[in-house]
Amino acid sequence: MNAQIVSIGDELLIGQTINTNAAWIGQKLSEVGVAVNKVVVIGDAEQAIRDAIDRAMRETELTLVTGGLGPTHDDITKKTVVEYFGGTLKFHPDILDRLRQAFKRRGLEMPAVNENQAWLPDNAEILPNHKGSAQGMLFKKDGCMCVVMPGVPHEMKYIMENSVLPMLRQRSDGLVIRHQTWRTSGVPESTLFELLGDISELEQHGKLAFLPKYSGVDIRLTVKAESTEEAEAHVQFVEQRIMAKAGKYIFGTGNKPLEQVLGELLTRRQETLAVAESCTGGLIANRLTNVPGSSNYFLSGIVAYSNAEKIHRLEVSPETLERYGAVSEQTAREMAAGVCKTTGATYGLSTTGIAGPGGATPEKPVGLVYVGLSAPNHLEAKRFAFGKDRLVNKERSAYTAMFMLYRILREKS
Amino acid sequence: MNAQIVSIGDELLIGQTINTNAAWIGQKLSEVGVAVNKVVVIGDAEQAIRDAIDRAMRETELTLVTGGLGPTHDDITKKTVVEYFGGTLKFHPDILDRLRQAFKRRGLEMPAVNENQAWLPDNAEILPNHKGSAQGMLFKKDGCMCVVMPGVPHEMKYIMENSVLPMLRQRSDGLVIRHQTWRTSGVPESTLFELLGDISELEQHGKLAFLPKYSGVDIRLTVKAESTEEAEAHVQFVEQRIMAKAGKYIFGTGNKPLEQVLGELLTRRQETLAVAESCTGGLIANRLTNVPGSSNYFLSGIVAYSNAEKIHRLEVSPETLERYGAVSEQTAREMAAGVCKTTGATYGLSTTGIAGPGGATPEKPVGLVYVGLSAPNHLEAKRFAFGKDRLVNKERSAYTAMFMLYRILREKS
Repeated sequence: MNAQIVSIGDELLIGQTINTNAAWIGQKLSEVGVAVNKVVVIGDAEQAIRDAIDRAMRETELTLVTGGLGPTHDDITKKTVVEYFGGTLKFHPDILDRLRQAFKRRGLEMPAVNENQAWLPDNAEILPNHKGSAQGMLFKKDGCMCVVMPGVPHEMKYIMENSVLPMLRQRSDGLVIRHQTWRTSGVPESTLFELLGDISELEQHGKLAFLPKYSGVDIRLTVKAESTEEAEAHVQFVEQRIMAKAGKYIFGTGNKPLEQVLGELLTRRQETLAVAESCTGGLIANRLTNVPGSSNYFLSGIVAYSNAEKIHRLEVSPETLERYGAVSEQTAREMAAGVCKTTGATYGLSTTGIAGPGGATPEKPVGLVYVGLSAPNHLEAKRFAFGKDRLVNKERSAYTAMFMLYRILREKS
Repeated sequence: MNAQIVSIGDELLIGQTINTNAAWIGQKLSEVGVAVNKVVVIGDAEQAIRDAIDRAMRETELTLVTGGLGPTHDDITKKTVVEYFGGTLKFHPDILDRLRQAFKRRGLEMPAVNENQAWLPDNAEILPNHKGSAQGMLFKKDGCMCVVMPGVPHEMKYIMENSVLPMLRQRSDGLVIRHQTWRTSGVPESTLFELLGDISELEQHGKLAFLPKYSGVDIRLTVKAESTEEAEAHVQFVEQRIMAKAGKYIFGTGNKPLEQVLGELLTRRQETLAVAESCTGGLIANRLTNVPGSSNYFLSGIVAYSNAEKIHRLEVSPETLERYGAVSEQTAREMAAGVCKTTGATYGLSTTGIAGPGGATPEKPVGLVYVGLSAPNHLEAKRFAFGKDRLVNKERSAYTAMFMLYRILREKS
């Protein structure tokens, strides 16, 4: 089965909101064997919505529409789809009741404008939304389906997970689409490509793509096969070649982020981690604590932006700061060692650098970053020259630090 | 002038990569008065690329294509557009030279596969890319333009900023499109809508939209006018009404994030800030330090995930932790007070809660969060009941904390 996503909202076109919904839907559909062949983003305009849905209904078997179902006047999706599919709106007292109760639980009176969300099309199956006030709708026409959902991410996800994905799993047409991704760090895209050798031979097993990210380059294989076993055999063949040729750069597979890989290794080894961040400003701690259960191994993060804090919290010596400066190999080493010492963690990571745009000197340009690692009987700091962009420098520094920890954990495991 | 964005890449369709490029381009075009009316995302497939570009060229004056210009075999955009626009590839020795030197600066030998990036179409204007190896291209056909750029965000941005946007600014057709956004926090979308009163009267001045975010609800006005003065007058009228009706919920305008608003207030007042994070795990510090120059007022962030760290770094009393637990109003107060005391900051923010999915008890469910604020002669902590999702809970806690600080700074200013 193939599908198209229609994302509605002026905020998407003028770039005020990033279309994370389409990515999430694409991922979930792909897992149940549905291939998305197009995403179309349009504004809150009746004609554009009608045209996009009409074209999608003609081009694919499944159309997924998100956005424009809110209670306010600029939300015109419901009106437009009801007209397009030729239905009328019907009042649902039970839904009005649920909405009122939801507001009450938050200690609020329901505004009158929400009442229109209890009016729903009589020619659609209602897909319940227990996370918000706009219900999902499923229309059918000429053997094709159209699902309409709100654009608020966790409401859309609720409807997908509780109504849409279960239905699609039942309808699966037997053809297996399998994606496998190997994640690398510390190697440029073209070098990685050449390392792997004859690509056309690998591509007899599936389609191969190279995706550069802040964390490094991902290698993705897409296999279409008659059975799970056949798909698995193709993945295995390609994996063997990749591990043989580029294994040392690979830190994981799938969408699993590096911070989760680290978490699994630390949990298994029953070891702990603390971080001392200057130029990354909390980004490493934030990433690490995005992983559920991270409190089992992550003890502490110190964002020591000032010299005083580096001395007071991390026991960096004032002489080191004086002689070499805050952005130096020596300071990075002392920060990593200090955060281990003061927290008792097994491992300590540190970053110090010029994230930019300000703060540079002729000897220390924007993008200069030192990353430190402290481990049992091991203390090191490495110098990196990243770019001019503050947020990119934070990202690259954070991943570089986490990859340094990954390498030492892998050596030991 | 209107435009369409064509984003190419299988990774976008299967949701492995989020389409941040389209959002960024939409924002920048809107600033120079170009309206994006559609974004189309397709895979790395020749026919799909050709169809999407052909349709965009017929529907709009400006087509912007990103993705599929890398050096590896799966990058087929260049081949496809050259054929579509009827050109042939020409070798550019100067570009090959530059590529070789760029690799050399990073201490690497250039892989042979990069050589094909020095072959460029003879019927396109080359838009230089000094951030990577794939050059931008500008094709013209029937009075319309097509810009083709790599998908790596900072490379695309370099070409946009140095070639595309300067050219568009010169061509501006005189019609002014003005977007203005007012950012609110702490009020539901429908309540805000009702507060504002008669929307149809406001909409005589421009199109109004309500955009719920983690930070709160943004109100966006879009004005089209003959002159900048006329547009400004419409914005002023709407602004007066919004400030009169909902001013107390508004923390800023435009795309300016709350952390930047806080930074400006703190800089002006020459005051400082430190944060003590438990359930937000570094997210607040990370947001605050995304702002250039934040080292002038942000002293320190302590991610005190363990009780030991709360006691040792933040001077939370062991009795408080014992009697009320780490997730309590009392602990939040002591964390905020403690981070001020130990760093000397003017203001201290704290968070402690059950981010989930684990860690809940019958009395303390997932989503329970306490946010603390310490200010001169002021110490408070508030209780919040957020949802079930770990990352959403981190986001909402972080914004709630920052908005508490904003309110007290505004009172004083």
